[in-house]
Amino acid sequence: MNQTDSKPVYLTFGLHAHQPVGNFDHVFQEHLQDVYLPFLTRAVERGFLPLTLHLSGPLLDWLEGHAPDYLDLVGRLAAEGQLELLLAGYYEPILPSLSREDCLEQIGWMRDALRSRFGVEAKGCWLTERVWEPGLAGDLVDAGVEYVLVDDRHFIAAGFPGDQLHQPFRTEAGGKSLSVFPIDEKLRYFIPFHPTSDTVTYLRTLRSQGKYLAVAADDIEKFGGWPGTRKWVYEEGWLDEFMAAMSEMEDAGEIRIATFSQALAALDSGGLAYLPSASYREMEEWALPTPAFRKLDHLKKSLGEDELFRGDGPLIRGSHWRNFLVKYPESNRMHKKMMALSSLCRDRGNPEDARRALGRAQCNDVYWHGVFGGLYLRHLRDQIWHNLAQAEELLRTDEGLAWQRLDLDLDGREELWIHSHAFSALVSPARGGSLEELTLFGPRVNLANTLTRRKEPYHEVRDMERAGDSTGEDSGTPSIHEIEEGLFFSELPPEDGDERAIFVDRILPEDATVEGFREGSFEALYSWAGAAFEMIGAEVGQPAGTEASEKNTPSWIEVSLGDTGGMGLKKRYRFEADGTVEAYFEWNAEAFSAEARFSTEISLGGDAEVLAVPDAEIWRFPISTYSKSERGLDETVQGESVTVLWPAGQGWGRVRLSRK
Amino acid sequence: MNQTDSKPVYLTFGLHAHQPVGNFDHVFQEHLQDVYLPFLTRAVERGFLPLTLHLSGPLLDWLEGHAPDYLDLVGRLAAEGQLELLLAGYYEPILPSLSREDCLEQIGWMRDALRSRFGVEAKGCWLTERVWEPGLAGDLVDAGVEYVLVDDRHFIAAGFPGDQLHQPFRTEAGGKSLSVFPIDEKLRYFIPFHPTSDTVTYLRTLRSQGKYLAVAADDIEKFGGWPGTRKWVYEEGWLDEFMAAMSEMEDAGEIRIATFSQALAALDSGGLAYLPSASYREMEEWALPTPAFRKLDHLKKSLGEDELFRGDGPLIRGSHWRNFLVKYPESNRMHKKMMALSSLCRDRGNPEDARRALGRAQCNDVYWHGVFGGLYLRHLRDQIWHNLAQAEELLRTDEGLAWQRLDLDLDGREELWIHSHAFSALVSPARGGSLEELTLFGPRVNLANTLTRRKEPYHEVRDMERAGDSTGEDSGTPSIHEIEEGLFFSELPPEDGDERAIFVDRILPEDATVEGFREGSFEALYSWAGAAFEMIGAEVGQPAGTEASEKNTPSWIEVSLGDTGGMGLKKRYRFEADGTVEAYFEWNAEAFSAEARFSTEISLGGDAEVLAVPDAEIWRFPISTYSKSERGLDETVQGESVTVLWPAGQGWGRVRLSRK
Repeated sequence: MNQTDSKPVYLTFGLHAHQPVGNFDHVFQEHLQDVYLPFLTRAVERGFLPLTLHLSGPLLDWLEGHAPDYLDLVGRLAAEGQLELLLAGYYEPILPSLSREDCLEQIGWMRDALRSRFGVEAKGCWLTERVWEPGLAGDLVDAGVEYVLVDDRHFIAAGFPGDQLHQPFRTEAGGKSLSVFPIDEKLRYFIPFHPTSDTVTYLRTLRSQGKYLAVAADDIEKFGGWPGTRKWVYEEGWLDEFMAAMSEMEDAGEIRIATFSQALAALDSGGLAYLPSASYREMEEWALPTPAFRKLDHLKKSLGEDELFRGDGPLIRGSHWRNFLVKYPESNRMHKKMMALSSLCRDRGNPEDARRALGRAQCNDVYWHGVFGGLYLRHLRDQIWHNLAQAEELLRTDEGLAWQRLDLDLDGREELWIHSHAFSALVSPARGGSLEELTLFGPRVNLANTLTRRKEPYHEVRDMERAGDSTGEDSGTPSIHEIEEGLFFSELPPEDGDERAIFVDRILPEDATVEGFREGSFEALYSWAGAAFEMIGAEVGQPAGTEASEKNTPSWIEVSLGDTGGMGLKKRYRFEADGTVEAYFEWNAEAFSAEARFSTEISLGGDAEVLAVPDAEIWRFPISTYSKSERGLDETVQGESVTVLWPAGQGWGRVRLSRK
Repeated sequence: MNQTDSKPVYLTFGLHAHQPVGNFDHVFQEHLQDVYLPFLTRAVERGFLPLTLHLSGPLLDWLEGHAPDYLDLVGRLAAEGQLELLLAGYYEPILPSLSREDCLEQIGWMRDALRSRFGVEAKGCWLTERVWEPGLAGDLVDAGVEYVLVDDRHFIAAGFPGDQLHQPFRTEAGGKSLSVFPIDEKLRYFIPFHPTSDTVTYLRTLRSQGKYLAVAADDIEKFGGWPGTRKWVYEEGWLDEFMAAMSEMEDAGEIRIATFSQALAALDSGGLAYLPSASYREMEEWALPTPAFRKLDHLKKSLGEDELFRGDGPLIRGSHWRNFLVKYPESNRMHKKMMALSSLCRDRGNPEDARRALGRAQCNDVYWHGVFGGLYLRHLRDQIWHNLAQAEELLRTDEGLAWQRLDLDLDGREELWIHSHAFSALVSPARGGSLEELTLFGPRVNLANTLTRRKEPYHEVRDMERAGDSTGEDSGTPSIHEIEEGLFFSELPPEDGDERAIFVDRILPEDATVEGFREGSFEALYSWAGAAFEMIGAEVGQPAGTEASEKNTPSWIEVSLGDTGGMGLKKRYRFEADGTVEAYFEWNAEAFSAEARFSTEISLGGDAEVLAVPDAEIWRFPISTYSKSERGLDETVQGESVTVLWPAGQGWGRVRLSRK
């Protein structure tokens, strides 16, 4: 097919609409009123059609329950060919982070939903957070996907020149191939943050260069959901002007507004492309550990914007999504628990309720952290653990107390998994025998779901100026990428020296105070936080008066751990069937000064009663974090630190931890 | 486990021994005498044991046939626990470039071979060219691999600090996990190119920092196979000195020489690591297109060595292995033909001979290009096509002439695949209807197996100085990485404007000469090289005198293609069952000046007879390339360009191409 300058440039306009599983009802409601409904209504009124739309599963579910009219409108437009609907994992998971079976299941759920609600056979796939890995191509093909949307960044990282990405390409894995559209970063920044004239000029330039295709695709929340955008987009007329300008360009034969399927049918293939593991540029940067992130920031600044975006930028890269699981052990714990339960679920005949709960627990938002809170959003982390608890409860309905030894978090060190019909706990011998998870099925809560206070790259000390005031953009509303620069502290927030868990044991000096402890500025005389404990034994106990031969009714499990190092701490846990835990500590009293104090810190993400024997001093403080969100800076209470202290000379102590 | 400064550093010493499928017999022989035998003999004499060794399949096969004593020695050392043997794909394929089934099959072949020849159950895996993709973890686990060796680069690219890589790690995909050893780049450069004292100092530094592990692993060919190394390593005493020093350090309790399995059993896990698609640094650079490679080179130089290796280096990356398939279409053609035949083979019951031929055709060396010739080595490319021909012949033994339309090379444009019991041809309508492959099963040759002359990053014009003379290294023999800098030309070698194939059609001006054509400096009046042709029709013909109802005996297939553009070229191919091809051209004689000439260029990688009707002028020249190899610069004749020229006013012509 020959295409010449006189042909229009295909403009594919894709929108991704998503709210996380379990987000607040009012957030859904506000977004419907401020974004989803006005955008679509305006597009219909203005004839800015056809569009391509992805509605995530959690949003579909909410809309079905609260605003079925909206879905009727979507269905009508789809039936008229004015709206192409996209696949994705139903609950918006990061597809490459799942097992192959779970990946296919998630896409299958979405295919079924689009088919049954809208009568649509979807062919294209929105790629959640555009997290790509080369092997994903084969899984997508197996799931019936014919094309997928990624960022131009993915191609640029493979070595493609940025100006040769105005075509659909083909990629392949294991001989299975599909089409790939590169989303134009320029349009992603222009729309809606620049004046419409910038987009018009850009599209004309593309056409004059004989390009075929301009791919715009991004979160629909940019059109009224992000701070400041509602006023700019709707009230100050950005959207009307933009849609009018695009319609004019179409009428003049300069562009053709098309769905992705239409563009695919009309345009030549750009050929083969193999994309490395990649996401959009910012995501790759966020996935870096903080010191490396700062190096990258420094390098970017020293090279300068020009060099970076037109010259060597493609050669400078951050990390990849999976590294969030290394960077944030809390994220890894959710992920590996989900993996373990998904596998258990398959072993138990895959009950649909459990599978759906696991599917919801795969929702990506809270497994990582960039600009939008993510992992730091406690109510969303609670949702993951809630769904994991629901799934596990369904899988263990008739189970008694049991324990197993396995490397559940897959870090190369074994844990102990203790569970019953009522709870699920994970003891980590390699981390000082602490309790990393204590999920109670009744309230569907993981008592250990809190967060370690970490240094984030945006934790910077400066005079309280706000960089946001001086962005110097002479037009348009500031984009979130500009807002994000403006977080500074007059004093750095406290940072934890050890990963938080339940029962982290230390010897503290006599003069240690709860204030120093809260500020993270204390020095322990000795800490078992990272000490490798060995498992000494495990015992299953019967209720008093019953015979050992009465099977399936153990009333408690006791596990004993010991520090093989010189400081001699023995730790014994007794788990009761309802999830009550008693921890018994025995340390070498003679190794420390009698004035020192043995302490065990219990970081709690849920309500629990802490009872110490013998009587002990107890320190409590809220675990607060300071993180970025779309609103700027969030201070979040992630739980409570409860520390039990006894005189070191006492040599032993006991703590009973139970549901309040 | 507590490890303190007083503990020795584990030194794991891995060796990878490989020769490509079909390499010259004398190369195997020389390497046995110069490398494989002397290294192992010396290690036994000096007690530099235990070692870890990977012998590739092609090498194992050759040794079994020519030097079974060597394998007996290997087996004896393995039985004594002095040698750990590693898995890999048997024929040394790039594992992520294969389908999952083929990947498991290749590793399975190696597992069987090590079991039957040496009685060994291997657990570790040499990763060919260390080409990693995150999804590979799951396949390796499925193949029974317990640990794999990658470069420290892989970790550094994920954001790990370089000094925290002295442990084995765990990685995971889809819930399947295995151990990963990071190969130390420093040791890779030290051994054997630096004085032994550098290694001694480095190991002592590691120990003083409380590190656990030093991973040395690289091609054994460095010890006598690479230029200059034989003299340096054996005759000038480098190896004796090195082994003596290591033994001394071991005796002093400073290091412990161990196999990878021993280190894995003894050392704590460094925790979880997720590695992005990656290979060693140089490979990622070679995979870049030439302009991007030059940008990278410029960026590296402007940042400086210090900044690069200690500072921002980890953030600067090239491309990934799969991009070689985009960079070199010749590589992609072998790869996709292999994929198509592998799939066909499974459909036809997987005959073992065909599977083995396909396995050999997956041998990686010639699918890419870095320092060692690779794709530019014609005798090795011939081997791939030889094995593909063998496999296809086995799969089509009883087949008659047939054709199918499919996107065989997976670039998003359809080709025509025409085949019989005797040949296999690929016509590309999207590339001016040229013939991209013409494989004859009898001689097992692809007549189209030649190479387009391309600009490589090391094609640089300079005064004939040799940079190698001024490397300024004050000790040691120059490593290949230094030699590679020294390739300069007084004049750039010719570059082709179009991808080579059989029957690439152009209108040339009256004054065009074979010299200009050879130099690539000609300008065509019109070229159909990249023009998209449409298929007009296909016809299956019977021998004269037979009835159309006699099935399975078509004697020819005729396909007609046409240029839909204004220049009106029609092209008709008639394929006979033995692989003889007749091409008929009909062009718009009135569109060009009568003095101009219609030309069809036939780039041949094998012997063939070219017969033109009516009589035509014929230009011939050898297709020469200039590429890097371990010896420096290779000039290679990749085949012959045969161009048939008729007066443009004539309007038609015919060429018969048959086996000589």
